[in-house]
Order: sequence, then structure tokens, then C-alpha cells
Amino acid sequence: MPSSEFDLIAAITERLPAPGPRVRVAGGDDAAVVEPRASSAITVDAVVDGVHFRLADFGPRAAGRKALGAALSDLAAMGAAQGEAYVVVGAPEGLSDEELLGIADGIAEVAEREAVSISGGDLVRSPVLVISVTAVGYEPGAARLVTRSGARPRDVVAVTGRLGGAAAALILMERGPEARGASPELRESLLARQLDPVPRLREGRALAAAGATAMIDISDGLGADAGHLAAASECRLEIELSKVPVAEGVAQVAGGEREALELAAGGGEDYELLVTLPRDRLDAAAAAVAEAGSPLTEIGYATEGSGVTIRLEGGGELEPKGFDQRRGSLSGSG
Amino acid sequence: MPSSEFDLIAAITERLPAPGPRVRVAGGDDAAVVEPRASSAITVDAVVDGVHFRLADFGPRAAGRKALGAALSDLAAMGAAQGEAYVVVGAPEGLSDEELLGIADGIAEVAEREAVSISGGDLVRSPVLVISVTAVGYEPGAARLVTRSGARPRDVVAVTGRLGGAAAALILMERGPEARGASPELRESLLARQLDPVPRLREGRALAAAGATAMIDISDGLGADAGHLAAASECRLEIELSKVPVAEGVAQVAGGEREALELAAGGGEDYELLVTLPRDRLDAAAAAVAEAGSPLTEIGYATEGSGVTIRLEGGGELEPKGFDQRRGSLSGSG
Repeated sequence: MPSSEFDLIAAITERLPAPGPRVRVAGGDDAAVVEPRASSAITVDAVVDGVHFRLADFGPRAAGRKALGAALSDLAAMGAAQGEAYVVVGAPEGLSDEELLGIADGIAEVAEREAVSISGGDLVRSPVLVISVTAVGYEPGAARLVTRSGARPRDVVAVTGRLGGAAAALILMERGPEARGASPELRESLLARQLDPVPRLREGRALAAAGATAMIDISDGLGADAGHLAAASECRLEIELSKVPVAEGVAQVAGGEREALELAAGGGEDYELLVTLPRDRLDAAAAAVAEAGSPLTEIGYATEGSGVTIRLEGGGELEPKGFDQRRGSLSGSG
Repeated sequence: MPSSEFDLIAAITERLPAPGPRVRVAGGDDAAVVEPRASSAITVDAVVDGVHFRLADFGPRAAGRKALGAALSDLAAMGAAQGEAYVVVGAPEGLSDEELLGIADGIAEVAEREAVSISGGDLVRSPVLVISVTAVGYEPGAARLVTRSGARPRDVVAVTGRLGGAAAALILMERGPEARGASPELRESLLARQLDPVPRLREGRALAAAGATAMIDISDGLGADAGHLAAASECRLEIELSKVPVAEGVAQVAGGEREALELAAGGGEDYELLVTLPRDRLDAAAAAVAEAGSPLTEIGYATEGSGVTIRLEGGGELEPKGFDQRRGSLSGSG
């Protein structure tokens, strides 16, 4: 399937779902044109082969799924309604047309499942596979968008879903398919946490409507992302490690309950939501999140001060994981 | 200046201009929050070291300028008013903090000059330097956004500014600083066309208000971009090569007038605007574009059919340049 024999851009375009009703002009022009609605939440997120995923291990379809899923997770963390996405693919020479179309298929799969319009994009040559996604969401009618900065002392700290699955999947991938300690079913469910992160969009909107004061998605890891939220909110988060909900099978892969908890607290890419709420909103929030399909678990509280403490059951604290200086969100300040 | 000793994200953030009044929450959160205004024009554009620029030749500041300038050029081609930009930088290990901050300085320089708010971004590790920019613009009060698809038979085809400068600069850069054939002043003005592309935002809005039927920015080259416009408009463009305005000094670098015209027609990255207009709007459009700072030159006309013909003065046609299958805009189609 040599590039010269068919229109690759058209072949990719055919794979993507149709633009939504608000999109007046979709990609293929200099820019997409989108009708205004409510306040927009806009986020950019890039994944790079060899850094955020390995094409050889993931395959192209999972690479596409992960790129879009991770970007949409940022919208979930705002409590936004998903709108449009714009995708830049930097494709190396060695990437075959089939692989490129596989990436498009993965993106299309998530776009259809999550009802997101792929409204534009750019395909460029690059020495390494890079997939950069800009996701645009909107303030839903029911609630304001939720930032990281609204947590207040005495708020409850809670988390959706169960953690550690994505990190356990990386361990399984390193050990290879012959590794013992995980049944095929378990292996598959853990790998899905790494290869097909599901953005908690419904959960995010439910939490926003239920009175969330601050929210962030867990991409860097519970400890690191709690740190981002604490810093933005100018408060301190106290988390009890024993309360952190751990995904099924993580203990088997990690080699023990305590190791599983550490993986759940330190490993990233679970794309669950970390949220703070006034205590009197917790029950209603848990009910709304359950309706959206996920458990909501109280794991600690906010207090005066700064930073994050993850307390161990027998006393003492979990050492914080290192922070990557070359990873972070940028914005103008003055 | 080791990364561990200072907050790199904060250092980058400090370099960027303050977010505009419509930005309620700038980057540093999961997503930026932007107040709605008019219809949005949204575009994504990525530049990759070794493909679209060479960091060793450009230096970090010019790389940053080029990345943002090229993305804003897509907004210019819609006749949009510039709004916000979101920048993903994929930074390789070998890139020093100084270089990274130099890129931020280049982005900040263009953002300030063009009054664009850098409202969010993402800094990730990458084996190669990638700068991906999402630019958001808005429909100005005076006119609708202009797509590529509105050209009609008998429309005039015109171009802003003068072409060939960016391609001549690449030749100069290959020959090195000792190359003969260009005075220091000429060399500098040609290099600026490559290292600091100025998006024709005012010209684009002036053309939209003057009744432009279709518009595109010249990034791939006059012939290739005229082809995109013709395809989107389902018409045919006839261009007279001798009418194409050539930038000063290109003939000296290219080695002749005819060679200069070929460079102007085939070379890319001039980021001027190619526009179609009803003939009776041409004079008013030229006056409006002149007020915005650029000449507007009639170079041909639209007619029934498909494709682009670039006619030579003595008869015959310029061979079209090859089209890169791995370069193009993506969007969902169904």
C-alpha cells in the first residue's frame, strides 16, 4: 500500500466520525469553524513514542486511543462536556500507511465512543511518532467548570474508580506474555487500563454538578497530581494510603497488598479523577458518580498548609515520587 | 542552569504574555477556560526539528517564532481575529534549559507582537524537538470567516506581498554566511522571511471584509496551495507566472529572473495569502490590504474545471511540484 497510490489524507478522513452539529467547517480548510456555545475548556496533550507509550508494544490502534483518551481526561477533570478534538500526527518515514490508518482507527474508536468530533488536524513528517491532541469542551448547563484551585480546608478528598491498574499493566508488558501471576482475563483487564484509558467524562460532570470544589485527573500519579491540586488550591492534602482503592489484580502483579497500594499511589496514567468536596456533598456526589458508572472513595481531607502527605497505616509517610521538571502545563502569566 | 535547581515551568510561564480578558482560567489547570464570543476558527500546526526547521541553523528563538507565526497564518487565511494559542513542546534530553527558554522567548515575541494570548500548553519529553501550536481565532464583526471553498469562475486570483523570499533564505542558509551574491542587508531581509514569518492577520481581515470568496495561506508553495484552493472550490485556477510578485533579492540568490519566478511559484513558507475575489471588488480589496501594510497583486483568474495551471510568458506551463502525501489537514467526514 505505497503512499503514492492512494490519497492517505482522504483515507484517514474517512475513518473519522462526522463532525458534530456545531462544526460549520471541519478540517481540510485552514482552520475549523465552530459555532459559539458556552465557555470553552481547551486543553492540549501530546504523547510521544518511546516516552509515553511504545508503538512496538501498544500497536497503532492503542496509540491512537491513548492519545485521544488522555486529552479527553483533561476535559473530564474540568467537569466539561466534550466537544471537538484536533489531532496533530507527526509520522516517521518508517511508519507504514497501515500503521498510520491504525492510529486513525484508534482515534476514531474513542471519538465515536465518547461522542467527540474530530474537527481538524495536521499530518507532518517527524523522526519519531508524536500524537498531539487539542480537546475543546464546554461548560455544561448544570454547573460551572471546576478548576484545580478551589479546594478549601475541611473539604473531603475522594477519587473515582480504582488505581494502580495502568502501572501494573506496564509491569506485565515488561515481563512479557509468558509471565506468571496473572490469569488471561486479569491480564487483559489490566492492560486495558494502560492501552485504552477511558476518560471519566460523565463522572466529571456529575462531580461538578454535585459541588466539587477542585478536580484533577490522575495522569502523573496520585501523589504527584494531589500535589498539583494542593499547590493550585494553596492548601494541604492528607491522604490515608490504606483508603486508596486498588484495581483488581494489582496486588498479584505487584507481589503484595502493600506493594499494590504503593503502585496505586505512585503509578500514573489511571486517568481517574481526584476531587475535593465539602463533606456534606460527599454522599450525593457518590450517588451521582455511581450512576455515571464508577465508585467514589473518600481517601483523605484538605487542611491548612501546603503539600501532600500520604500516611501509612502503621504510622509514617510514603516518600513522594520525583517530579519531572520537563513535564508540565504552560501558560502566560505576564 | 540544571533543571533540578529551578522551576522550569514557572520560568517559561514568566516569559509569556498575560492571558487576554476572555481567558477566565489560563494553563496550569487541566484545561484553559475561555469565554464564548463569536464563531471560532481553530487550527493546529506542528513544526519538527529536521523537517520544518533545523534548530542548529535557526536557533531556539526563531524556532519558537516560526511555530507560532505559521499557526497564526492559518487564522489569517480565514480572515479571523486572533484570540488564544496553546503550545505543546516536545523537548529532547539534549535540549538545554536555555534553549527551551529561548523557544519560549520566540513564542512570547510573536504572541506580544500579534496580540495573542498563550492560554495553555504542555511540555513533554520527546526524542526530537516538536512544537505543536493550536491557534484559536474569532469571526470579526465586519465579515464572515473565509474558507478555501468559495472561489467561483471569473473570480480574480490575487496574492498579498511578494513570494520566494523564504525559499531563497533556505538557499542562503545552505550556502553559509560566506556565500556571495547577497549583501548583508539583503541576506538579513531574506532570512527573516524564513526565520520570522509574519502572519498576514490584518490583511486577511481586510480581504474578508472586502468580499474575498476563498482564501489560503501559502505555506506549501503557490502552486500546491492554489491546488488546495481549486480542489476545495471545485474550480480551476489559471495563474500567469510573469505576474507573480517576487521578493527583492530572490533573483540574485536564484541566479536569474526566471529562476526567481520558479522559486516564487514553487517554494513554500512565504505565509502570504492567496485569495479569490469578484473582479469588481479587486480595487477596494487592494486599497484595504495596502492600508494593512501589504501590496495585493492580481496573478490570474478562476474558471470552470479543476486543478491549477501556471502559464509561462512564452507559452507552455510550469510543471507542478510533487505533493507530499504525508502532509495535510485532517478532519472527520463520516
